[in-house]
Amino acid sequence: ELAAFLREQHPVDLADMVEELPDDLLVAVFERLGPEQSALVLGELDREARARIVRLLGKERVGDIVEAMDTDDAADLLGELSPEQAGQILGELQAEEAAEVRELLHYEPDTAGGIMTTEYVAVNQGMTAQEAIEHLRQRAPDAETVYYVYVVDDDEHLLGVLSLRDLIVAPPETPLKHIMRTKVVSVFHDQDQEEVARIVSRYDLLAVPVIDHQRRLLGVVTVDDVIDVLEEEATEDALRAAAVSPGEEGGDLRGGVWRLARPRLPWLLALLFMEFLAGSVIDRFRGGFDGVTLALLSVFIPIMAGEAGNGATQALAVVVRGLATGEIAEREVLAVVWREARVGLLAGLITGVVLFGVTTLWKGDLRLGLVVGLALALNLPVAKMLGGLFPIVIHRLGIDPAVASGPFITTVTDFTSMLTYFTVAALLLTQLG
Amino acid sequence: ELAAFLREQHPVDLADMVEELPDDLLVAVFERLGPEQSALVLGELDREARARIVRLLGKERVGDIVEAMDTDDAADLLGELSPEQAGQILGELQAEEAAEVRELLHYEPDTAGGIMTTEYVAVNQGMTAQEAIEHLRQRAPDAETVYYVYVVDDDEHLLGVLSLRDLIVAPPETPLKHIMRTKVVSVFHDQDQEEVARIVSRYDLLAVPVIDHQRRLLGVVTVDDVIDVLEEEATEDALRAAAVSPGEEGGDLRGGVWRLARPRLPWLLALLFMEFLAGSVIDRFRGGFDGVTLALLSVFIPIMAGEAGNGATQALAVVVRGLATGEIAEREVLAVVWREARVGLLAGLITGVVLFGVTTLWKGDLRLGLVVGLALALNLPVAKMLGGLFPIVIHRLGIDPAVASGPFITTVTDFTSMLTYFTVAALLLTQLG
Ligand SMILES: [Mg+2]
Ligand SMILES: [Mg+2]
Ligand SMILES: [Mg+2]
Ligand SMILES: [Mg+2]
Ligand SMILES: [Mg+2]
Ligand SMILES: [Mg+2]
Ligand SMILES: [Mg+2]
Ligand SMILES: [Mg+2]
Ligand SMILES: [Mg+2]
Ligand SMILES: [Mg+2]
Ligand SMILES: [Mg+2]
Ligand SMILES: [Mg+2]
Ligand SMILES: [Mg+2]
Repeated sequence: ELAAFLREQHPVDLADMVEELPDDLLVAVFERLGPEQSALVLGELDREARARIVRLLGKERVGDIVEAMDTDDAADLLGELSPEQAGQILGELQAEEAAEVRELLHYEPDTAGGIMTTEYVAVNQGMTAQEAIEHLRQRAPDAETVYYVYVVDDDEHLLGVLSLRDLIVAPPETPLKHIMRTKVVSVFHDQDQEEVARIVSRYDLLAVPVIDHQRRLLGVVTVDDVIDVLEEEATEDALRAAAVSPGEEGGDLRGGVWRLARPRLPWLLALLFMEFLAGSVIDRFRGGFDGVTLALLSVFIPIMAGEAGNGATQALAVVVRGLATGEIAEREVLAVVWREARVGLLAGLITGVVLFGVTTLWKGDLRLGLVVGLALALNLPVAKMLGGLFPIVIHRLGIDPAVASGPFITTVTDFTSMLTYFTVAALLLTQLG
Repeated sequence: ELAAFLREQHPVDLADMVEELPDDLLVAVFERLGPEQSALVLGELDREARARIVRLLGKERVGDIVEAMDTDDAADLLGELSPEQAGQILGELQAEEAAEVRELLHYEPDTAGGIMTTEYVAVNQGMTAQEAIEHLRQRAPDAETVYYVYVVDDDEHLLGVLSLRDLIVAPPETPLKHIMRTKVVSVFHDQDQEEVARIVSRYDLLAVPVIDHQRRLLGVVTVDDVIDVLEEEATEDALRAAAVSPGEEGGDLRGGVWRLARPRLPWLLALLFMEFLAGSVIDRFRGGFDGVTLALLSVFIPIMAGEAGNGATQALAVVVRGLATGEIAEREVLAVVWREARVGLLAGLITGVVLFGVTTLWKGDLRLGLVVGLALALNLPVAKMLGGLFPIVIHRLGIDPAVASGPFITTVTDFTSMLTYFTVAALLLTQLG
């Protein structure tokens, strides 16, 4: 039977299977799932399928499912709906659950408050180990996985933390305050989700408590949601680094052409104007060469600009990762630029000699070979220094260097490489000509 | 006192504080830490500081510390040492611990076996809930955080899994086989660490059991180490995408110039040769124009190539992320290419009109404006199609599209943009000239 097959499946797998189903089949599947499993599947569906289910099932049935969801997922779901829809579904929930979810809806989505859940276990400092275990037995249906047990005072101020194992191995009559750890890593509700993720990752936590500025416990952020944050932020960074404004539209290939083009067009236009700088360098120099020479020189423009761009992109990536992992300290600007200069000199020397050789053989012109080889040799250190400098500078300005964009730096090196190339050409061809 | 201050610190923070200390101070710090805390700090030090400590403290003291480490971290540490050093330290360990760590050293570092720990709790299927809790109390000193309790048969075959909460809420006499969940997500010891990370992330696990091909339980991979894998792989991908071969050398800015240049040079040379393709297009066409015209045309080479590169980089990033998140299915090649073509046409139209306008005003030459505007309008759809196609093709070839490199695609579009540009110029300037 279909119902039996569905029960067997993991909610994550089930969500993948059903999200593309037509409306009638989608409803048929949800009719055969209990509220618990429906809640898990609904939490894993993509936004579009989630909106369909809410529309198709009606507020009463959706209310039953939302009741069974973790409060963080419930708040995320309601946050995606119109205020009226969300209000209707909140009306279907039990008063306590509705109040908790409503509360969560007030936090900014990308803060600790926006990703925390209110399903956690807190016990009063006055309890003994045995009493705490009893409390846990009673709260059992609510907290599916107990990551940590938090110890609070009568006003919900966070005092300490215990693992379930601490409770089990302690003699039953031990007061909690004697076994709890009082050094608790916690985050404020308004801290950025990226910082929360960094803290959970750094201290190898399964969950981190979220507090207000009076240290009152508000909720917890669990490690599974931290992994989702890390993935979400990685997507954002990758798009920004390629000069695409991230957002719903950016990644959604199912959207119309406008929705896909909008996060890219402003960058293409901005970079277009920047590229006029490189063009104007050539424009300035072109009068200084006879037609045949300039034609020959123009053959090497893409080689010069392309190689500078590649070298800068490499430096950019190495420095961005170094800053992210902490291997490069912000104050090491000069050390980094100096190192990139030497790497660039070495790379420039080697590729310059190759370009000199190939060009001299290809065109049978030693002077041309010298000009392009020398220009490339000078170009790469400049490009690598710029590629290394750029992420450090924007880091100093308080911007995440992960967004340092390849298109931006290659546009800059298009300019610097043209300047170097034509200056070398003007000098050498005049000297030798 | 120093010892008291040190005891107060989290091992992660302590590791950060001490890794830059000179040898004598580093030793002084470790002399004031107990083996437990030393073990935690040693596990968090960077590779270079770790090697120093091993050298400075001597095998006996290091043996005591390694004894206190989780076996996964102990194996990682010994794996970094010379076989002789590792053998000496193994000789200092208790027989059982030494055997476990030796065993772990046999697995490839980037597989499930290479990142698993042997600190987990397994109970026999014949036990009751009460007996399992007793077993846990006795194993207490070993397993710091109990993520899950695994149920095995007499030959260590994995049969089921329980949370600590399942054990606590079950009536004491319940046989484990009645309460355990038999659908256990597990991984094989030789599975790639990236797959392991994807599974833990997908099913929101705190740990995943590692089995051999007879389903015997070997160890567990914990979520904190999964986060480390995700970060490590993100670094690798970011470097590869910028045409840097990842590896120890790539990111280490402290290394010499050779060590920094080596992972970049092969790419710079390979791309240099590819860029000759773009150069040879110009070389072919240059005879067809008079000197003045070609000089004018050359002013727009960086604009044309740069903008095509930027457009392609954007498409590449969007499609790479779409493939990673599963939003783009591999079979949707044509849909993606067609969409990028339309986005490119729209972007080409808009930037083309802008370029036409600016160029016509700047140079006072309507024909030139038409040539560059039209060329850009044709260029962008081609570039975007290529940028979208490239990651899909390498995905088909079984290569992770995350490594699709920006420098490669911009080098390709340098060629296609020169072809488009000079073809349009040849046609229009001949027609109108
Ligand atoms: Mg939320
Ligand atoms: Mg960590
Ligand atoms: Mg760790
Ligand atoms: Mg959650
Ligand atoms: Mg970010
Ligand atoms: Mg963010
Ligand atoms: Mg370029
Ligand atoms: Mg290992
Ligand atoms: Mg997940
Ligand atoms: Mg999840
Ligand atoms: Mg570990
Ligand atoms: Mg990878
Ligand atoms: Mg790998």
